[in-house]
Formats: sequence, structure tokens, C-alpha cells
Amino acid sequence: MFEELINNQDSWLNGKGPESEIVFSSRIRLARNIDTLPFPSRASDIQKDSILKRIKEEYSNVRMLKKSNFVDMEELSELDSQLLLERHLVSQEHILAGKGKGVILAQDERISIMINEEDHLRMQAIASGFDLKKCWQILDSIDNDFSKKISFSFLPDLGYLTSCPTNLGTGMRASCMMHLPALILTKRINKILELLARISFTTRGLFGEGTQALGDFFQISNQVSLGLSEDELIDNLIGVVNQVKDQEMDARDILLKRYKPSLEDSVGRALGILKNCRLINSKEALSHLSILSLGLDLGIIKNADLSSTGQGKELINSLFIMIQPAHLQKIESKSLKEKERDYIRAEILRNKLKV
Amino acid sequence: MFEELINNQDSWLNGKGPESEIVFSSRIRLARNIDTLPFPSRASDIQKDSILKRIKEEYSNVRMLKKSNFVDMEELSELDSQLLLERHLVSQEHILAGKGKGVILAQDERISIMINEEDHLRMQAIASGFDLKKCWQILDSIDNDFSKKISFSFLPDLGYLTSCPTNLGTGMRASCMMHLPALILTKRINKILELLARISFTTRGLFGEGTQALGDFFQISNQVSLGLSEDELIDNLIGVVNQVKDQEMDARDILLKRYKPSLEDSVGRALGILKNCRLINSKEALSHLSILSLGLDLGIIKNADLSSTGQGKELINSLFIMIQPAHLQKIESKSLKEKERDYIRAEILRNKLKV
Repeated sequence: MFEELINNQDSWLNGKGPESEIVFSSRIRLARNIDTLPFPSRASDIQKDSILKRIKEEYSNVRMLKKSNFVDMEELSELDSQLLLERHLVSQEHILAGKGKGVILAQDERISIMINEEDHLRMQAIASGFDLKKCWQILDSIDNDFSKKISFSFLPDLGYLTSCPTNLGTGMRASCMMHLPALILTKRINKILELLARISFTTRGLFGEGTQALGDFFQISNQVSLGLSEDELIDNLIGVVNQVKDQEMDARDILLKRYKPSLEDSVGRALGILKNCRLINSKEALSHLSILSLGLDLGIIKNADLSSTGQGKELINSLFIMIQPAHLQKIESKSLKEKERDYIRAEILRNKLKV
Repeated sequence: MFEELINNQDSWLNGKGPESEIVFSSRIRLARNIDTLPFPSRASDIQKDSILKRIKEEYSNVRMLKKSNFVDMEELSELDSQLLLERHLVSQEHILAGKGKGVILAQDERISIMINEEDHLRMQAIASGFDLKKCWQILDSIDNDFSKKISFSFLPDLGYLTSCPTNLGTGMRASCMMHLPALILTKRINKILELLARISFTTRGLFGEGTQALGDFFQISNQVSLGLSEDELIDNLIGVVNQVKDQEMDARDILLKRYKPSLEDSVGRALGILKNCRLINSKEALSHLSILSLGLDLGIIKNADLSSTGQGKELINSLFIMIQPAHLQKIESKSLKEKERDYIRAEILRNKLKV
């Protein structure tokens, strides 16, 4: 399955959205639970199956999901599950074994709806660049359409009820994936992460909870979902992301003004290694791609240095995902050991970056 | 001075001699002292000046020195002294301040004769590749010619007298500069160095006593100069060098058979970094050049990957020396701080390796 995903140029991963130099992508998810049934953690296998069946019956009435794929997670190979994870379409938790798990994918991966993850429904909309309002528009429409057919657990005082109390209220988590290489190079990042934690924003790595800041990516999201309206939560996040963006831009200015030779050296070396290596793990590759991306943003290298079609930035963005283990195995149509992946990864990088 | 040295393609540094893949160069030096005068360490400034003057009068009668330059070390700038050191034409000790120091250079840097270093005369012949006999031929002829005019300190029982007792007897030290990257990569080098020490051979780095094995170069020389004839000393060294050479070839075979992908990766990365860096210190540059040289020897990269004129190996060999601090400053015709040298070094490497 999913062969078409690997080459999908229209996905949110192309990094073509507004202000995408620093804000790689925006994402909102809503948690919802059917009011007559227990949360997945408490539900029996039969109950979970009935939830899956119920959603399967209803989703085609949701306008935003007219053209979509319904996937039963149990029918997926491990590799395909991993592929969905690498493309941010399902969570780590959702690819673990379990009954009644499903996912609905729509609109070129911009919409994904997990069934029987931590809640009955985890509805996600992603947009390229800094575009939380668009995500909210989509999700609000989906939520409204589902609500016409399904009664969700809701209490007037508390709002939507969710499996984990941190999601109570709106059931919403909004996040932006930010690319912050200059804050890392200038060693200012920790201060900013501390500040974000203090004002109740969570930061995670490229692949969600518990992952490191691979490739200098940080996902910033609201920790609280109770006591504020959806619009307020989104506006708060927009404010915070703008501030972090300004800090990153400031750090980039400093790099250019004070450390240009070192920066040019790092960018050159990153390009030299990616174009010539024969074995490379994904962490190292992400780190070099991150520096190349910064180099492009700052005009140290040109699009033409990376791509004969002049699409340097799009190429880098696609490589961030394409070099992940499941993607490599999907491209090669077979399972690969770690060392084999390092070899194929290097080959792909060399070939893609050959100008 | 010495502007012509920098671009001298005919010097022993071109690495074109016999078996030069592993034996980069061969060198012999003879220590001699004039019998009526004290060793330099005991001589007064006036005595040292008279030694210098004496040699200056006599050297033009030496056939091998017909076309040569006589250089008074006191008249050299610090930069020019350093340049001679980097080209292995004088020793560390010889460029320190001191009266009456001189050097005679002849035959495209294949001959250098230090005056008032540790001994009155330190006569050196270097050849590209594995060619100790040629060095000995040259030195024997020079020694004979000098002996017709100058009476050297010599005792029938002890042979030639020298300032340091380790040089007593023949006054000869013969050495080969070996490039042993595979013994380092396979971690076999230490065992070999221990063995060499046990059979009384000394190993040093690229720039003589006390220097590390920069660029994977090891200079192997006899420790004893007493009790054996010159020919025996040379034959012993030839035997030892041949054994080390076999070990290195064996290690290269193993790398090719068992570790080819890693080796290709290292060679590719070395090339990628050298072609794209903007700041690089000399230690790092030497290490990458060493791997490129190995890559060429093993056919992992082709001459044409390095040089548009197909002279890849010669280019690498010249770069080993050209990227040294004094050479860089000579090329730029000005004194350079460390960071500036790193910048110029990277520029030269990028330009030279641009194919």
C-alpha cells in the first residue's frame, strides 16, 4: 500500500505554505469520544470494533472526507504503519498492536483521522507553513459534520471529555513545526525552550513526543486545552510562534553578520558530505539537511547548487522525510537492515543532490 | 626568498619515485665535524662563524653542489625558515636563533646541507619513493669531495665523532617516510611501532622528532649508527621498510575485502569536505588528504576525480606540503593569523580539487 504517498508532491510536506522558511508546518488535532461508549483504554475489543464500524459508516457523510481512504491498522504491514508514522499521519501509539484501530486519510495527507488511539477520534489537519487558521477551518467543518450524526461526550462545565484530562475542554492541540537551526548554532535555544515551558507550551522533536530535536526541528504546542476557546488557543499559539520566529530571525542575522565564514564552512561541509557519502544514518543526514536548508534561506547556497530544476528548498524538504527508514524500504520495496538503509540513504542523497 | 620552491614540480616531494604508493620518500643524512674545532654546542660565536666561512669556501668544489644556493640562516625571515622546515630541508633545531648557522640547497631540494646544527655538517639527500641507494650514492660523493679538502673528526675505533653519541660511527641516519593509512584504519599500527622500537628502529611523524603521525605518515629510521657499515645499515632499513610495506598492503587488502563500503564512505566524505569546506586546519586537511591518497591507491577514486589533468596523486602529494602554514603565507605573500590560514587553506584545497 501507499506507494503513491512516497512521491506525493502535493502533500503538506512540500513546505510551500506561508512563512515556511521557519514555520515548516502547522497542525491542529481534536479529540472526540462517542458518548455511549467507554474510552478505548477501557473498551472491550468488541466495543472497539463497534466504534470503528460506526465511524466507517459515518465518515462518508463528512464533506471534507468525500475523497478519502479508510485504513484498518490491523491490515497494515509493519512497514506501512511506519511509513504513516514518518509522514506524521498516525502516532507512535497508534501503530502498536491493538484491536479496532483505524485511520482515515484525505486531501493529500492534509487530513488524517485516527480511530481508537487514546480517544475514539483523533482528527488532525496539517498545513504547510504557518497556517493554523486553515487547519482549524478544516477541522471545525469535519467536527460539525460528524456531530450531526454522532453524539460526542460533552459536559457544559468541562467541554469535551477525553481519555487524558490534559485534553479536556476543547480537546484541541494546536502546534507548529519550527525549524530553528540558528537558535541552536547560537546556543540560545535552551533559554527559549525554558521560557516556553514556563508559559505552558510544550516542545517536542520532529517525530512527536519523546523524540529529540532531529534536524533542528521543534514542534511547539499548547499544553492547556481547557478554559479558553479554540480561537483563543490558536491566537495564543500564533503569538508565541511569531515570537520564536523573530528570535530565530535575529539569530540568523547574527550568524550572517558575525560568523559568516564558519556558517559558509558548515553549509559547504554539509553539502560535501551529503553529495559524497556512501553510508549515513538518519540523524546525521537530518543534521546536514538542516544546515543546507538554513544555507538556502540565508542565500549562502543557491537553489541551483542543489537541484538542476531550481527546486532546492522543496528537494531538501522532501529529503527530510524520504530518508526515514520506512520510506527507504518502501522505495526499495523490501525490508532493509540498518547498515543497508545507511547505504541506500547515502545513495539517494547523492543522486538527488547531484546537480 | 624561495618563491620558486613553492611551485617546484621537480622536487623530491612529487612522490614519483619507485614504490611511492607506500614509501613516500627516502632520506639519508651524514653528520660530520671538522677535527680542529669544537662541536657547535661548545663553539664560540667566532668559531661558528669560521666554520660557516670554511664551508662556504669549500662547497663549490663539491661536484654535487655545483649548482646550489648558500643560505645564511640569520638572514632568513621567520617565514622563510619555516618554509624550509615544512619542505624538510632544515630541522626544527636549525631554525632557532644562533650564530653561524647556514644551509646549502642543491639539485631541486634533493640535497640540503645544514651548517652548525648539532654537528658542523648535517648533509642530507632525499629521494622520492623507495630509493635509499640513490641517496647514499649522492651523499657518499659529497662526503668524498669534502674530505679531500677538510679533515673530519674520525677515530679508527669509533669512526666519525659526532656531537651526540647516538650518531657515532658512520654518522649516518637513513629513513623512509611511509604512508600507512590502512595500518591505522585497521588498528594494527601500534603493534608494528612497538616491534620496530624493539629492534632499534625509530618512528617519527611527518615533521620529524616529536611530531605526531600527521596524515598517517611515519618516518622509520635506524637508531644505531655504530658497529655496522653504511651499506649494512641501509640494507637493514630496506628490509624493515619492506616488511612494514607488506603489512600495509595486507591491511589494504583487508580493507578492500571486508570494509569496502566504509572505505568508500570515508574516501567520499574526505573528498566532499575538502572540495566544499571554507575553514580547515592543517591536521584535519592532512587526514582527509591521506584518505584520498589511499582511495587513489586502491582505485576507489580515479585521478580524474581529483585533477582535470589526471595527475591526482601528484596533486595530493603537493597539497600535503602546500597547505602548511609557511607555504600558505608564502603563497599569499603575507603573514596570516591562524583563522586566516584556515580560510586560505580551504580556498586552495577547493580550487585545486575542483575538477
